[in-house]
Amino acid sequence: MMKKIAVMGSTGSIGRQTLDVVKANPEKVSIGALAAHANDELLEQQIRTFNPDIAAVFDDEAANRLRRRYHGKTEILSGEEGLLAVATYNNIDTIVAAVSGYAGLRSTLAAVEHKKNIALANKETLAAAGGLFIEAVKRNGVSLLPVDSEHSAIFQSLNGERYDEIKRLLITASGGPFRGQQKSDLEKVSLEQCLKHPKWSMGKKITVDSATLANKGLEVIEAHWLFGIDYDKIDVVVHPQSIVHSLVEFKDGSVIAQMGLTDMKLPIQYALSFPKRWDNAFGQLDLVKASPLTFEQPDVETFPLLKLAVECGQKGGTAPCAFNAANEEAVYAFLAGRIKFLDIAAIVLNTLDMHKNITVPTIEDIENCDKESRANASLAIKKLN
Amino acid sequence: MMKKIAVMGSTGSIGRQTLDVVKANPEKVSIGALAAHANDELLEQQIRTFNPDIAAVFDDEAANRLRRRYHGKTEILSGEEGLLAVATYNNIDTIVAAVSGYAGLRSTLAAVEHKKNIALANKETLAAAGGLFIEAVKRNGVSLLPVDSEHSAIFQSLNGERYDEIKRLLITASGGPFRGQQKSDLEKVSLEQCLKHPKWSMGKKITVDSATLANKGLEVIEAHWLFGIDYDKIDVVVHPQSIVHSLVEFKDGSVIAQMGLTDMKLPIQYALSFPKRWDNAFGQLDLVKASPLTFEQPDVETFPLLKLAVECGQKGGTAPCAFNAANEEAVYAFLAGRIKFLDIAAIVLNTLDMHKNITVPTIEDIENCDKESRANASLAIKKLN
Repeated sequence: MMKKIAVMGSTGSIGRQTLDVVKANPEKVSIGALAAHANDELLEQQIRTFNPDIAAVFDDEAANRLRRRYHGKTEILSGEEGLLAVATYNNIDTIVAAVSGYAGLRSTLAAVEHKKNIALANKETLAAAGGLFIEAVKRNGVSLLPVDSEHSAIFQSLNGERYDEIKRLLITASGGPFRGQQKSDLEKVSLEQCLKHPKWSMGKKITVDSATLANKGLEVIEAHWLFGIDYDKIDVVVHPQSIVHSLVEFKDGSVIAQMGLTDMKLPIQYALSFPKRWDNAFGQLDLVKASPLTFEQPDVETFPLLKLAVECGQKGGTAPCAFNAANEEAVYAFLAGRIKFLDIAAIVLNTLDMHKNITVPTIEDIENCDKESRANASLAIKKLN
Repeated sequence: MMKKIAVMGSTGSIGRQTLDVVKANPEKVSIGALAAHANDELLEQQIRTFNPDIAAVFDDEAANRLRRRYHGKTEILSGEEGLLAVATYNNIDTIVAAVSGYAGLRSTLAAVEHKKNIALANKETLAAAGGLFIEAVKRNGVSLLPVDSEHSAIFQSLNGERYDEIKRLLITASGGPFRGQQKSDLEKVSLEQCLKHPKWSMGKKITVDSATLANKGLEVIEAHWLFGIDYDKIDVVVHPQSIVHSLVEFKDGSVIAQMGLTDMKLPIQYALSFPKRWDNAFGQLDLVKASPLTFEQPDVETFPLLKLAVECGQKGGTAPCAFNAANEEAVYAFLAGRIKFLDIAAIVLNTLDMHKNITVPTIEDIENCDKESRANASLAIKKLN
């Protein structure tokens, strides 16, 4: 049966690759709806290629530009309501949640409440509101499939296994562009150096998060919520080749791993094809060429955001939301050239110092925590300027 | 529920390690019967430790020695009938088939016909009589679980997966003690060099087979029968660290691998615990310590028995039986110091040249092929002396 999906964040890196997967599988999946932030030109091309029923642009001016150029069958929506209309559109069964950052939370939650299955590429949703989100997923009986290569690997390694026999999840990290460097080496790194990820082609926000290892910290929190596993059973191992996408160790000493090319289209396709696997149009892993595969401990001194994120996860409540908000603000300030690389961790630490944890938050508590943490982070960023 | 098992070949390497697993899991598995070839002293210790209902010694003299010393509750049997009595003993549900070589075929088949589940460590059974054996397994509705680390890895990697989505099985090989050497280097290797396997602690026959790569050829045939996969979808990759025990590539490009310490007790325990996993008393894999993991193509020129075995598998019929018989005779002659290392492949090649394939053999055809091939191999061995 043909799957009909909506892609939230279709002009971003994951969104574009999702559409590559759809193009490669025209008999298995089609596009019912698209949503983008502000890139109306690319969205227009996507609309003309995939002919969704509806498409939304968050930015009103971009939506107006698009409406002036495009007069086809697809209905063009805009603003927050437009995003929500796409996320809850009745003619789709699955949404690919690929909006970057906290901004994806509201529409993804709305999709869950409207019984949509979720292919989740937005890790900030679980980082900021994991408990609430998982509760909504369970209450609505929808399926939640990971798109992140690491979580897809864990999910695949757990196929046919019993969760109560898990000893440890082992999330692999490429180590980012600054692996092996000392803190002093990182004082003057440029934005360009930071955006040259050695292995994965991803959006800017996540590429910076990979360089600070904040990304791995968020992934630990994500794994905790996705698989219901305690933090003391989740470890990170640095694997610079990014061939082993993650591993699960069982109580009998057996370790199951998922491997593949470093191509996000593969986990995206798996999230769409599950429980089946579809033919692959994107190349096969050659283990001999990929050899050697190496593994090392992460350097939590030089990259403190990994440990800090996990500590926030362990605290629970609004702590991971505060971490995520401060980190987002700091990364955007770094991307805008306003602060230096090492300032990112300092801003997050500073913001967390001011955070008062609410242990069992409502969605309003989460939203307040997010706003307040961003304000505190912005203040700290201004002080540095 | 307590599992009650019989161990066929209890004084061999796999048999002893099976009893270590039983000792570590006294509340989950117990020994109903034991069978050994001729090591009556070790068998006596095992009887006193595990108190089976019956125990058999194939060698009559050894059985008599044991009967003179032992007067406990365990009934002592002997000869071929003794082995068959253990394999078909009504008070057990699973037999661990760990007799080395073709000798294990008859008793394992008898166990299947008596509805026993099989934990199979004897790869010669499937090499010599794969079609017949699998037919018997299906007809009797028993479960067949691999004990070989490679096949256990494939079996575990296939948990929860669809066999029609398999693209390729990838069996790992340590490469043995002579990996990287040329044929000319191998002219004068001694038995001692050959028996120093770099990674696995195993019996002598299989250790020589690892050095010639005949073992990997037999494993390809075994995988073909165990998983019902065509030979052109089974590859061998050399992985000297023996940490990745084997891999399955799926049609979507995803690769699932099973890893662990190089300890046969782990796959033995899995074969006994399946579908559960039991706690591990034998140590955990440390991926950082195990790093780097390397992979390379096997050298089929220097080690021709790998390719030859696979070719026999592809021919089908009695060809793999002839390969196995000739290889066993040649290896025993090498172990007895009668021929040189490189002669093993020459003897097998010579025997196969004389073999007339029966494409759909009966069990009598298999037995005749085995005898005739051994006779031809013996003749060729004598000529070399």
